Amino acid sequence: MKTTFIWPVRVYIEDTDFGGVVFYGNYLKFFERARTEWLRTLGINQNTLISTSGIVFVVKEISVKYLAPARLDDEIQLTVTVERLKKASLFFQQEAWRGDTLLASADVQIVSVAMPDFRPAAIPQEILRKMQE
Amino acid sequence: MKTTFIWPVRVYIEDTDFGGVVFYGNYLKFFERARTEWLRTLGINQNTLISTSGIVFVVKEISVKYLAPARLDDEIQLTVTVERLKKASLFFQQEAWRGDTLLASADVQIVSVAMPDFRPAAIPQEILRKMQE
Amino acid sequence: MKTTFIWPVRVYIEDTDFGGVVFYGNYLKFFERARTEWLRTLGINQNTLISTSGIVFVVKEISVKYLAPARLDDEIQLTVTVERLKKASLFFQQEAWRGDTLLASADVQIVSVAMPDFRPAAIPQEILRKMQE
Amino acid sequence: MKTTFIWPVRVYIEDTDFGGVVFYGNYLKFFERARTEWLRTLGINQNTLISTSGIVFVVKEISVKYLAPARLDDEIQLTVTVERLKKASLFFQQEAWRGDTLLASADVQIVSVAMPDFRPAAIPQEILRKMQE
Repeated sequence: MKTTFIWPVRVYIEDTDFGGVVFYGNYLKFFERARTEWLRTLGINQNTLISTSGIVFVVKEISVKYLAPARLDDEIQLTVTVERLKKASLFFQQEAWRGDTLLASADVQIVSVAMPDFRPAAIPQEILRKMQE
Repeated sequence: MKTTFIWPVRVYIEDTDFGGVVFYGNYLKFFERARTEWLRTLGINQNTLISTSGIVFVVKEISVKYLAPARLDDEIQLTVTVERLKKASLFFQQEAWRGDTLLASADVQIVSVAMPDFRPAAIPQEILRKMQE
Repeated sequence: MKTTFIWPVRVYIEDTDFGGVVFYGNYLKFFERARTEWLRTLGINQNTLISTSGIVFVVKEISVKYLAPARLDDEIQLTVTVERLKKASLFFQQEAWRGDTLLASADVQIVSVAMPDFRPAAIPQEILRKMQE
Repeated sequence: MKTTFIWPVRVYIEDTDFGGVVFYGNYLKFFERARTEWLRTLGINQNTLISTSGIVFVVKEISVKYLAPARLDDEIQLTVTVERLKKASLFFQQEAWRGDTLLASADVQIVSVAMPDFRPAAIPQEILRKMQE
Protein backbone atom coordinates (compact mmCIF):
# COMPACT_ATOMS: atom_id res chain seq x y z
CA MET A 1 0.00 0.00 0.00
CA LYS A 2 2.94 2.38 0.59
CA THR A 3 3.61 4.79 -2.21
CA THR A 4 6.26 7.44 -2.15
CA PHE A 5 5.99 10.39 -4.45
CA ILE A 6 8.35 13.37 -4.53
CA TRP A 7 7.49 16.90 -5.61
CA PRO A 8 9.88 19.89 -5.63
CA VAL A 9 8.89 23.40 -4.62
CA ARG A 10 10.96 26.56 -4.67
CA VAL A 11 10.82 29.09 -1.81
CA TYR A 12 9.73 32.52 -3.08
CA ILE A 13 9.46 35.86 -1.26
CA GLU A 14 5.72 35.25 -0.74
CA ASP A 15 6.58 32.18 1.38
CA THR A 16 8.96 33.92 3.80
CA ASP A 17 8.25 35.99 6.89
CA PHE A 18 10.07 38.70 8.89
CA GLY A 19 12.30 36.01 10.47
CA GLY A 20 13.80 35.45 7.01
CA VAL A 21 12.39 31.91 6.84
CA VAL A 22 9.33 30.14 5.48
CA PHE A 23 6.19 31.01 7.50
CA TYR A 24 5.04 27.90 9.39
CA GLY A 25 1.56 27.93 7.85
CA ASN A 26 2.99 27.85 4.33
CA TYR A 27 4.23 24.27 4.72
CA LEU A 28 0.56 23.28 4.63
CA LYS A 29 0.41 24.79 1.14
CA PHE A 30 3.54 22.88 0.13
CA PHE A 31 2.19 19.58 1.49
CA GLU A 32 -1.10 20.17 -0.34
CA ARG A 33 0.68 20.92 -3.64
CA ALA A 34 2.51 17.60 -3.34
CA ARG A 35 -0.70 15.66 -2.62
CA THR A 36 -2.39 17.37 -5.58
CA GLU A 37 0.48 16.44 -7.89
CA TRP A 38 0.41 12.87 -6.60
CA LEU A 39 -3.31 12.74 -7.49
CA ARG A 40 -2.51 14.22 -10.91
CA THR A 41 0.01 11.44 -11.65
CA LEU A 42 -2.83 8.97 -10.91
CA GLY A 43 -4.99 10.81 -13.43
CA ILE A 44 -7.16 12.37 -10.71
CA ASN A 45 -8.01 16.02 -11.26
CA GLN A 46 -9.77 17.63 -8.28
CA ASN A 47 -11.53 20.22 -10.42
CA THR A 48 -13.04 17.44 -12.56
CA LEU A 49 -13.83 15.37 -9.46
CA ILE A 50 -15.96 18.10 -7.91
CA SER A 51 -17.82 18.92 -11.15
CA THR A 52 -18.55 15.29 -12.08
CA SER A 53 -19.19 13.70 -8.68
CA GLY A 54 -19.56 16.58 -6.21
CA ILE A 55 -16.78 15.02 -4.14
CA VAL A 56 -14.02 17.06 -2.50
CA PHE A 57 -11.06 15.86 -0.44
CA VAL A 58 -10.68 17.89 2.75
CA VAL A 59 -8.13 17.75 5.52
CA LYS A 60 -9.62 16.34 8.73
CA GLU A 61 -6.48 16.34 10.83
CA ILE A 62 -2.83 17.35 10.43
CA SER A 63 0.17 17.19 12.75
CA VAL A 64 3.34 18.98 11.72
CA LYS A 65 6.80 18.90 13.30
CA TYR A 66 9.15 21.73 12.30
CA LEU A 67 12.79 20.66 12.46
CA ALA A 68 14.83 23.24 10.53
CA PRO A 69 14.00 26.57 8.84
CA ALA A 70 13.86 27.01 5.06
CA ARG A 71 14.99 30.23 3.40
CA LEU A 72 14.40 32.24 0.24
CA ASP A 73 15.55 30.44 -2.92
CA ASP A 74 15.76 27.04 -1.21
CA GLU A 75 14.55 24.11 -3.25
CA ILE A 76 12.47 21.78 -1.10
CA GLN A 77 11.54 18.18 -1.88
CA LEU A 78 8.11 17.18 -0.61
CA THR A 79 7.33 13.52 -0.12
CA VAL A 80 3.91 11.84 -0.17
CA THR A 81 3.50 8.41 1.40
CA VAL A 82 0.10 6.75 1.64
CA GLU A 83 -0.11 5.13 5.07
CA ARG A 84 -3.67 3.85 4.92
CA LEU A 85 -6.61 3.98 2.54
CA LYS A 86 -10.19 3.55 3.75
CA LYS A 87 -13.63 3.91 2.16
CA ALA A 88 -13.93 7.61 2.91
CA SER A 89 -10.52 8.56 4.24
CA LEU A 90 -6.83 8.62 3.40
CA PHE A 91 -3.83 8.78 5.74
CA PHE A 92 -0.60 10.35 4.48
CA GLN A 93 2.85 10.77 5.91
CA GLN A 94 4.67 13.69 4.32
CA GLU A 95 8.10 15.24 4.67
CA ALA A 96 9.90 18.36 3.47
CA TRP A 97 13.61 17.99 2.70
CA ARG A 98 16.33 20.43 1.57
CA GLY A 99 19.11 18.17 0.35
CA ASP A 100 19.64 15.76 3.24
CA THR A 101 18.17 18.08 5.87
CA LEU A 102 14.68 17.19 7.06
CA LEU A 103 12.83 20.52 7.48
CA ALA A 104 9.38 19.32 8.49
CA SER A 105 7.28 16.18 8.71
CA ALA A 106 3.53 15.77 8.81
CA ASP A 107 0.79 13.22 9.36
CA VAL A 108 -2.33 14.09 7.41
CA GLN A 109 -5.80 12.60 7.42
CA ILE A 110 -7.94 13.43 4.40
CA VAL A 111 -11.65 12.69 4.18
CA SER A 112 -13.88 12.49 1.16
CA VAL A 113 -16.95 14.73 1.47
CA ALA A 114 -19.96 15.55 -0.72
CA MET A 115 -20.67 19.15 -1.65
CA PRO A 116 -22.27 21.47 -0.79
CA ASP A 117 -22.86 20.32 2.79
CA PHE A 118 -19.52 18.60 3.44
CA ARG A 119 -21.01 15.33 4.74
CA PRO A 120 -18.71 12.27 4.59
CA ALA A 121 -19.01 10.34 1.33
CA ALA A 122 -17.31 7.23 -0.02
CA ILE A 123 -14.37 7.81 -2.34
CA PRO A 124 -15.63 6.91 -5.87
CA GLN A 125 -14.62 3.28 -6.75
CA GLU A 126 -12.65 4.34 -9.82
CA ILE A 127 -10.59 6.80 -7.77
CA LEU A 128 -10.01 4.26 -5.03
CA ARG A 129 -8.78 1.70 -7.58
CA LYS A 130 -6.30 4.18 -9.02
CA MET A 131 -4.97 4.92 -5.54
CA GLN A 132 -4.59 1.25 -4.66
CA GLU A 133 -2.55 0.41 -7.72
CA MET B 1 -21.00 60.51 -4.68
CA LYS B 2 -17.75 60.49 -2.65
CA THR B 3 -17.78 58.34 0.44
CA THR B 4 -14.84 57.82 2.70
CA PHE B 5 -14.75 54.82 4.94
CA ILE B 6 -11.84 53.84 7.19
CA TRP B 7 -10.93 50.31 8.30
CA PRO B 8 -7.98 49.36 10.54
CA VAL B 9 -5.84 46.27 10.00
CA ARG B 10 -2.97 44.99 12.10
CA VAL B 11 0.22 43.63 10.51
CA TYR B 12 0.83 40.01 11.58
CA ILE B 13 3.75 37.67 10.87
CA GLU B 14 1.78 36.12 7.96
CA ASP B 15 1.80 39.53 6.21
CA THR B 16 5.56 40.11 6.35
CA ASP B 17 8.34 38.83 4.11
CA PHE B 18 12.09 38.23 4.42
CA GLY B 19 12.71 41.99 4.01
CA GLY B 20 10.99 42.46 7.39
CA VAL B 21 8.12 44.39 5.78
CA VAL B 22 4.63 43.69 4.44
CA PHE B 23 4.78 41.68 1.18
CA TYR B 24 3.58 43.88 -1.70
CA GLY B 25 0.82 41.50 -2.74
CA ASN B 26 -0.71 41.54 0.73
CA TYR B 27 -1.87 45.15 0.37
CA LEU B 28 -4.41 43.76 -2.11
CA LYS B 29 -5.81 41.67 0.74
CA PHE B 30 -5.92 44.74 3.01
CA PHE B 31 -7.67 46.86 0.35
CA GLU B 32 -10.19 44.07 -0.23
CA ARG B 33 -10.93 43.72 3.50
CA ALA B 34 -11.70 47.44 3.66
CA ARG B 35 -14.03 47.29 0.62
CA THR B 36 -15.78 44.26 2.15
CA GLU B 37 -16.29 46.08 5.46
CA TRP B 38 -17.57 49.16 3.61
CA LEU B 39 -20.14 46.90 1.88
CA ARG B 40 -21.03 45.39 5.26
CA THR B 41 -21.78 48.84 6.73
CA LEU B 42 -24.21 49.31 3.82
CA GLY B 43 -25.87 46.02 4.75
CA ILE B 44 -24.38 44.21 1.74
CA ASN B 45 -23.06 40.72 2.49
CA GLN B 46 -21.17 39.17 -0.43
CA ASN B 47 -21.95 35.61 0.65
CA THR B 48 -25.69 36.40 0.62
CA LEU B 49 -25.33 38.30 -2.66
CA ILE B 50 -23.87 35.31 -4.49
CA SER B 51 -26.41 32.84 -3.08
CA THR B 52 -29.49 35.01 -3.72
CA SER B 53 -28.59 36.71 -7.02
CA GLY B 54 -25.56 34.83 -8.37
CA ILE B 55 -23.71 38.15 -8.52
CA VAL B 56 -20.07 38.53 -7.52
CA PHE B 57 -17.92 41.68 -7.46
CA VAL B 58 -14.55 41.06 -9.08
CA VAL B 59 -11.53 43.32 -9.57
CA LYS B 60 -11.11 44.33 -13.23
CA GLU B 61 -8.15 46.63 -12.79
CA ILE B 62 -5.92 47.85 -9.97
CA SER B 63 -2.98 50.25 -9.81
CA VAL B 64 -0.96 50.42 -6.61
CA LYS B 65 1.80 52.86 -5.63
CA TYR B 66 4.01 51.76 -2.73
CA LEU B 67 5.38 54.75 -0.80
CA ALA B 68 6.71 53.44 2.53
CA PRO B 69 7.13 49.97 4.04
CA ALA B 70 4.93 48.64 6.86
CA ARG B 71 6.32 46.37 9.56
CA LEU B 72 5.18 43.70 12.00
CA ASP B 73 2.75 45.02 14.63
CA ASP B 74 1.98 48.21 12.68
CA GLU B 75 -1.63 49.30 12.73
CA ILE B 76 -2.70 50.46 9.28
CA GLN B 77 -5.75 52.54 8.42
CA LEU B 78 -7.30 51.64 5.07
CA THR B 79 -9.51 54.19 3.33
CA VAL B 80 -12.28 53.51 0.81
CA THR B 81 -13.49 56.34 -1.41
CA VAL B 82 -16.05 55.71 -4.15
CA GLU B 83 -14.94 57.68 -7.19
CA ARG B 84 -17.62 56.59 -9.64
CA LEU B 85 -20.57 54.23 -9.70
CA LYS B 86 -21.92 52.78 -12.95
CA LYS B 87 -24.49 50.13 -13.87
CA ALA B 88 -22.04 47.25 -13.71
CA SER B 89 -18.88 48.80 -12.31
CA LEU B 90 -17.46 50.68 -9.36
CA PHE B 91 -14.35 52.84 -9.16
CA PHE B 92 -12.56 53.18 -5.82
CA GLN B 93 -9.61 55.19 -4.61
CA GLN B 94 -7.99 53.57 -1.60
CA GLU B 95 -5.10 54.42 0.70
CA ALA B 96 -3.10 52.73 3.45
CA TRP B 97 -1.88 54.97 6.27
CA ARG B 98 0.22 54.36 9.41
CA GLY B 99 -0.42 57.43 11.53
CA ASP B 100 0.30 60.32 9.14
CA THR B 101 2.54 58.29 6.83
CA LEU B 102 0.97 57.26 3.54
CA LEU B 103 2.18 53.70 2.87
CA ALA B 104 0.34 52.88 -0.35
CA SER B 105 -2.43 54.18 -2.58
CA ALA B 106 -4.56 52.37 -5.12
CA ASP B 107 -7.10 52.92 -7.87
CA VAL B 108 -9.44 49.96 -8.19
CA GLN B 109 -12.12 49.13 -10.74
CA ILE B 110 -14.64 46.52 -9.66
CA VAL B 111 -17.13 44.90 -12.00
CA SER B 112 -20.31 43.05 -11.22
CA VAL B 113 -20.43 39.61 -12.85
CA ALA B 114 -22.90 36.73 -12.93
CA MET B 115 -21.78 33.26 -11.84
CA PRO B 116 -20.74 30.75 -12.92
CA ASP B 117 -19.46 32.15 -16.22
CA PHE B 118 -18.28 35.58 -15.00
CA ARG B 119 -20.12 37.59 -17.69
CA PRO B 120 -20.79 41.27 -16.85
CA ALA B 121 -24.12 41.83 -15.09
CA ALA B 122 -25.87 44.91 -13.78
CA ILE B 123 -25.48 45.58 -10.07
CA PRO B 124 -28.88 44.73 -8.48
CA GLN B 125 -31.00 47.92 -8.06
CA GLU B 126 -31.31 47.50 -4.32
CA ILE B 127 -27.52 47.26 -3.92
CA LEU B 128 -26.96 50.25 -6.19
CA ARG B 129 -29.40 52.33 -4.16
CA LYS B 130 -27.58 51.49 -0.93
CA MET B 131 -24.27 52.50 -2.50
CA GLN B 132 -25.63 55.80 -3.78
CA GLU B 133 -26.99 56.91 -0.43
CA MET C 1 -1.09 28.57 34.91
CA LYS C 2 -4.12 28.31 32.60
CA THR C 3 -5.04 31.50 30.81
CA THR C 4 -7.81 31.82 28.31
CA PHE C 5 -7.78 34.67 25.87
CA ILE C 6 -10.28 35.20 23.05
CA TRP C 7 -9.64 37.01 19.77
CA PRO C 8 -12.17 37.49 16.94
CA VAL C 9 -11.30 37.24 13.26
CA ARG C 10 -13.51 37.80 10.25
CA VAL C 11 -13.38 35.51 7.20
CA TYR C 12 -12.51 37.47 4.05
CA ILE C 13 -12.33 36.37 0.40
CA GLU C 14 -8.53 35.90 0.76
CA ASP C 15 -9.18 33.18 3.37
CA THR C 16 -11.54 31.06 1.29
CA ASP C 17 -10.81 28.47 -1.38
CA PHE C 18 -12.67 26.95 -4.36
CA GLY C 19 -14.70 24.77 -1.96
CA GLY C 20 -16.31 27.98 -0.66
CA VAL C 21 -14.76 27.50 2.78
CA VAL C 22 -11.67 28.65 4.68
CA PHE C 23 -8.49 26.99 3.30
CA TYR C 24 -7.11 24.58 5.91
CA GLY C 25 -3.72 26.26 6.06
CA ASN C 26 -5.27 29.62 6.91
CA TYR C 27 -6.34 28.47 10.37
CA LEU C 28 -2.62 28.55 11.21
CA LYS C 29 -2.68 32.28 10.43
CA PHE C 30 -5.76 32.74 12.63
CA PHE C 31 -4.20 30.82 15.53
CA GLU C 32 -1.00 32.88 15.20
CA ARG C 33 -2.94 36.18 15.19
CA ALA C 34 -4.62 35.15 18.45
CA ARG C 35 -1.29 34.20 20.08
CA THR C 36 0.21 37.52 18.92
CA GLU C 37 -2.70 39.48 20.39
CA TRP C 38 -2.42 37.51 23.64
CA LEU C 39 1.26 38.52 23.81
CA ARG C 40 0.28 42.12 23.06
CA THR C 41 -2.14 42.19 26.03
CA LEU C 42 0.83 41.11 28.18
CA GLY C 43 2.81 44.05 26.80
CA ILE C 44 5.01 41.78 24.66
CA ASN C 45 5.66 43.08 21.15
CA GLN C 46 7.46 40.55 18.92
CA ASN C 47 9.02 43.24 16.72
CA THR C 48 10.57 44.87 19.83
CA LEU C 49 11.57 41.46 21.20
CA ILE C 50 13.62 40.58 18.14
CA SER C 51 15.32 43.99 17.90
CA THR C 52 16.20 44.23 21.62
CA SER C 53 17.04 40.61 22.48
CA GLY C 54 17.36 38.79 19.14
CA ILE C 55 14.73 36.33 20.38
CA VAL C 56 11.94 35.00 18.15
CA PHE C 57 9.13 32.60 19.05
CA VAL C 58 8.77 29.86 16.45
CA VAL C 59 6.33 26.98 16.13
CA LYS C 60 8.00 23.64 16.82
CA GLU C 61 4.95 21.44 16.52
CA ILE C 62 1.27 21.84 15.75
CA SER C 63 -1.65 19.41 15.55
CA VAL C 64 -4.93 20.65 14.12
CA LYS C 65 -8.31 18.90 14.02
CA TYR C 66 -10.82 20.33 11.54
CA LEU C 67 -14.41 19.79 12.70
CA ALA C 68 -16.64 22.09 10.63
CA PRO C 69 -16.03 24.43 7.68
CA ALA C 70 -16.06 28.24 8.00
CA ARG C 71 -17.40 30.44 5.20
CA LEU C 72 -17.03 33.95 3.86
CA ASP C 73 -18.20 36.64 6.28
CA ASP C 74 -18.20 34.29 9.28
CA GLU C 75 -16.91 35.77 12.51
CA ILE C 76 -14.66 33.31 14.30
CA GLN C 77 -13.60 33.42 17.93
CA LEU C 78 -10.07 32.13 18.53
CA THR C 79 -9.10 30.96 21.99
CA VAL C 80 -5.62 30.85 23.50
CA THR C 81 -4.99 28.67 26.55
CA VAL C 82 -1.50 28.26 27.99
CA GLU C 83 -1.08 24.58 28.89
CA ARG C 84 2.53 24.64 30.03
CA LEU C 85 5.37 27.13 30.26
CA LYS C 86 8.99 26.04 30.28
CA LYS C 87 12.37 27.81 30.10
CA ALA C 88 12.50 27.83 26.33
CA SER C 89 9.11 26.55 25.28
CA LEU C 90 5.38 27.22 25.54
CA PHE C 91 2.48 24.83 25.04
CA PHE C 92 -0.86 26.22 23.87
CA GLN C 93 -4.28 24.72 23.32
CA GLN C 94 -6.28 26.77 20.83
CA GLU C 95 -9.77 26.58 19.39
CA ALA C 96 -11.75 28.28 16.63
CA TRP C 97 -15.48 28.78 17.28
CA ARG C 98 -18.34 30.25 15.22
CA GLY C 99 -21.05 30.87 17.78
CA ASP C 100 -21.37 27.55 19.60
CA THR C 101 -19.92 25.48 16.74
CA LEU C 102 -16.34 24.29 17.24
CA LEU C 103 -14.63 24.64 13.83
CA ALA C 104 -11.09 23.57 14.67
CA SER C 105 -8.85 22.84 17.62
CA ALA C 106 -5.07 22.85 17.87
CA ASP C 107 -2.20 21.92 20.15
CA VAL C 108 0.80 24.14 19.56
CA GLN C 109 4.34 24.00 20.90
CA ILE C 110 6.31 27.23 20.58
CA VAL C 111 10.04 27.48 21.21
CA SER C 112 12.16 30.50 21.91
CA VAL C 113 15.14 30.77 19.53
CA ALA C 114 18.01 33.23 19.06
CA MET C 115 18.54 34.88 15.69
CA PRO C 116 20.05 34.58 13.18
CA ASP C 117 20.82 30.86 13.57
CA PHE C 118 17.60 29.74 15.25
CA ARG C 119 19.29 27.87 18.14
CA PRO C 120 17.12 27.32 21.25
CA ALA C 121 17.39 30.15 23.77
CA ALA C 122 15.78 30.78 27.16
CA ILE C 123 12.74 33.04 27.15
CA PRO C 124 13.90 36.35 28.68
CA GLN C 125 13.05 36.47 32.45
CA GLU C 126 10.93 39.59 32.12
CA ILE C 127 8.81 37.97 29.38
CA LEU C 128 8.46 34.75 31.35
CA ARG C 129 7.28 36.71 34.41
CA LYS C 130 4.62 38.47 32.36
CA MET C 131 3.40 35.15 31.00
CA GLN C 132 3.22 33.55 34.45
CA GLU C 133 1.10 36.30 35.97
CA MET D 1 16.84 45.90 -24.29
CA LYS D 2 13.66 43.82 -24.52
CA THR D 3 13.90 40.38 -23.03
CA THR D 4 11.08 37.93 -22.84
CA PHE D 5 11.20 35.15 -20.34
CA ILE D 6 8.43 32.60 -19.70
CA TRP D 7 7.72 30.79 -16.44
CA PRO D 8 4.92 28.27 -15.83
CA VAL D 9 2.89 28.09 -12.62
CA ARG D 10 0.18 25.66 -11.67
CA VAL D 11 -2.99 26.80 -9.88
CA TYR D 12 -3.40 25.02 -6.53
CA ILE D 13 -6.24 25.11 -3.99
CA GLU D 14 -4.32 27.74 -1.97
CA ASP D 15 -4.56 30.13 -4.96
CA THR D 16 -8.32 29.93 -5.41
CA ASP D 17 -11.14 31.75 -3.60
CA PHE D 18 -14.84 31.13 -2.95
CA GLY D 19 -15.64 32.25 -6.51
CA GLY D 20 -13.81 29.12 -7.72
CA VAL D 21 -11.11 31.21 -9.39
CA VAL D 22 -7.64 32.55 -8.57
CA PHE D 23 -7.82 35.35 -5.95
CA TYR D 24 -6.84 38.64 -7.60
CA GLY D 25 -4.01 39.33 -5.17
CA ASN D 26 -2.36 36.01 -5.94
CA TYR D 27 -1.39 37.12 -9.46
CA LEU D 28 1.12 39.41 -7.71
CA LYS D 29 2.74 36.27 -6.28
CA PHE D 30 2.79 34.65 -9.73
CA PHE D 31 4.33 37.74 -11.37
CA GLU D 32 6.96 37.89 -8.60
CA ARG D 33 7.85 34.20 -9.03
CA ALA D 34 8.44 34.81 -12.74
CA ARG D 35 10.66 37.86 -12.09
CA THR D 36 12.61 35.85 -9.48
CA GLU D 37 13.16 33.01 -11.94
CA TRP D 38 14.22 35.48 -14.64
CA LEU D 39 16.82 36.85 -12.19
CA ARG D 40 17.91 33.29 -11.41
CA THR D 41 18.57 32.55 -15.10
CA LEU D 42 20.86 35.61 -15.07
CA GLY D 43 22.71 34.13 -12.11
CA ILE D 44 21.19 36.65 -9.68
CA ASN D 45 20.06 35.18 -6.37
CA GLN D 46 18.14 37.66 -4.20
CA ASN D 47 19.12 35.95 -0.95
CA THR D 48 22.82 36.29 -1.87
CA LEU D 49 22.25 39.86 -3.07
CA ILE D 50 20.88 41.02 0.28
CA SER D 51 23.58 39.26 2.33
CA THR D 52 26.51 40.47 0.20
CA SER D 53 25.41 43.99 -0.78
CA GLY D 54 22.43 44.80 1.46
CA ILE D 55 20.41 45.51 -1.69
CA VAL D 56 16.79 44.42 -2.13
CA PHE D 57 14.51 44.87 -5.13
CA VAL D 58 11.10 46.19 -4.09
CA VAL D 59 7.98 46.96 -6.09
CA LYS D 60 7.37 50.70 -6.34
CA GLU D 61 4.31 50.59 -8.57
CA ILE D 62 2.15 47.97 -10.22
CA SER D 63 -0.90 48.14 -12.49
CA VAL D 64 -2.80 44.95 -13.21
CA LYS D 65 -5.63 44.34 -15.69
CA TYR D 66 -7.67 41.17 -15.10
CA LEU D 67 -9.12 39.81 -18.35
CA ALA D 68 -10.25 36.23 -17.68
CA PRO D 69 -10.45 34.05 -14.56
CA ALA D 70 -8.07 31.13 -13.89
CA ARG D 71 -9.26 27.98 -12.15
CA LEU D 72 -7.90 25.12 -10.08
CA ASP D 73 -5.44 22.91 -11.97
CA ASP D 74 -4.89 25.48 -14.73
CA GLU D 75 -1.33 25.83 -15.96
CA ILE D 76 -0.46 29.49 -16.44
CA GLN D 77 2.46 30.87 -18.43
CA LEU D 78 3.92 34.05 -16.96
CA THR D 79 5.94 36.36 -19.19
CA VAL D 80 8.63 38.82 -18.13
CA THR D 81 9.62 41.61 -20.52
CA VAL D 82 12.10 44.28 -19.47
CA GLU D 83 10.79 47.60 -20.76
CA ARG D 84 13.42 49.89 -19.31
CA LEU D 85 16.47 49.65 -17.10
CA LYS D 86 17.74 52.61 -15.11
CA LYS D 87 20.42 53.11 -12.42
CA ALA D 88 18.11 52.28 -9.54
CA SER D 89 14.94 51.07 -11.21
CA LEU D 90 13.55 48.47 -13.58
CA PHE D 91 10.35 48.55 -15.61
CA PHE D 92 8.68 45.26 -16.52
CA GLN D 93 5.69 44.34 -18.62
CA GLN D 94 4.25 40.99 -17.56
CA GLU D 95 1.42 38.78 -18.75
CA ALA D 96 -0.37 35.65 -17.54
CA TRP D 97 -1.61 33.26 -20.24
CA ARG D 98 -3.55 29.98 -20.19
CA GLY D 99 -2.99 28.53 -23.63
CA ASP D 100 -3.92 31.39 -25.96
CA THR D 101 -6.16 33.16 -23.43
CA LEU D 102 -4.67 36.26 -21.84
CA LEU D 103 -5.72 36.16 -18.18
CA ALA D 104 -3.97 39.24 -16.80
CA SER D 105 -1.36 41.81 -17.75
CA ALA D 106 0.76 44.04 -15.55
CA ASP D 107 3.16 46.96 -15.64
CA VAL D 108 5.62 46.81 -12.78
CA GLN D 109 8.23 49.28 -11.57
CA ILE D 110 10.91 47.81 -9.32
CA VAL D 111 13.39 49.91 -7.37
CA SER D 112 16.69 48.95 -5.84
CA VAL D 113 16.90 49.88 -2.14
CA ALA D 114 19.51 49.50 0.61
CA MET D 115 18.59 47.70 3.83
CA PRO D 116 17.62 48.22 6.56
CA ASP D 117 16.15 51.67 5.87
CA PHE D 118 14.89 51.09 2.33
CA ARG D 119 16.51 54.20 0.80
CA PRO D 120 17.03 54.15 -2.99
CA ALA D 121 20.39 52.67 -4.01
CA ALA D 122 22.05 52.09 -7.37
CA ILE D 123 21.76 48.56 -8.74
CA PRO D 124 25.26 47.00 -8.35
CA GLN D 125 27.25 47.31 -11.65
CA GLU D 126 27.73 43.56 -11.99
CA ILE D 127 23.96 42.96 -11.68
CA LEU D 128 23.18 45.75 -14.15
CA ARG D 129 25.61 44.27 -16.67
CA LYS D 130 23.95 40.87 -16.42
CA MET D 131 20.53 42.43 -16.97
CA GLN D 132 21.71 44.39 -20.01
CA GLU D 133 23.14 41.39 -21.79
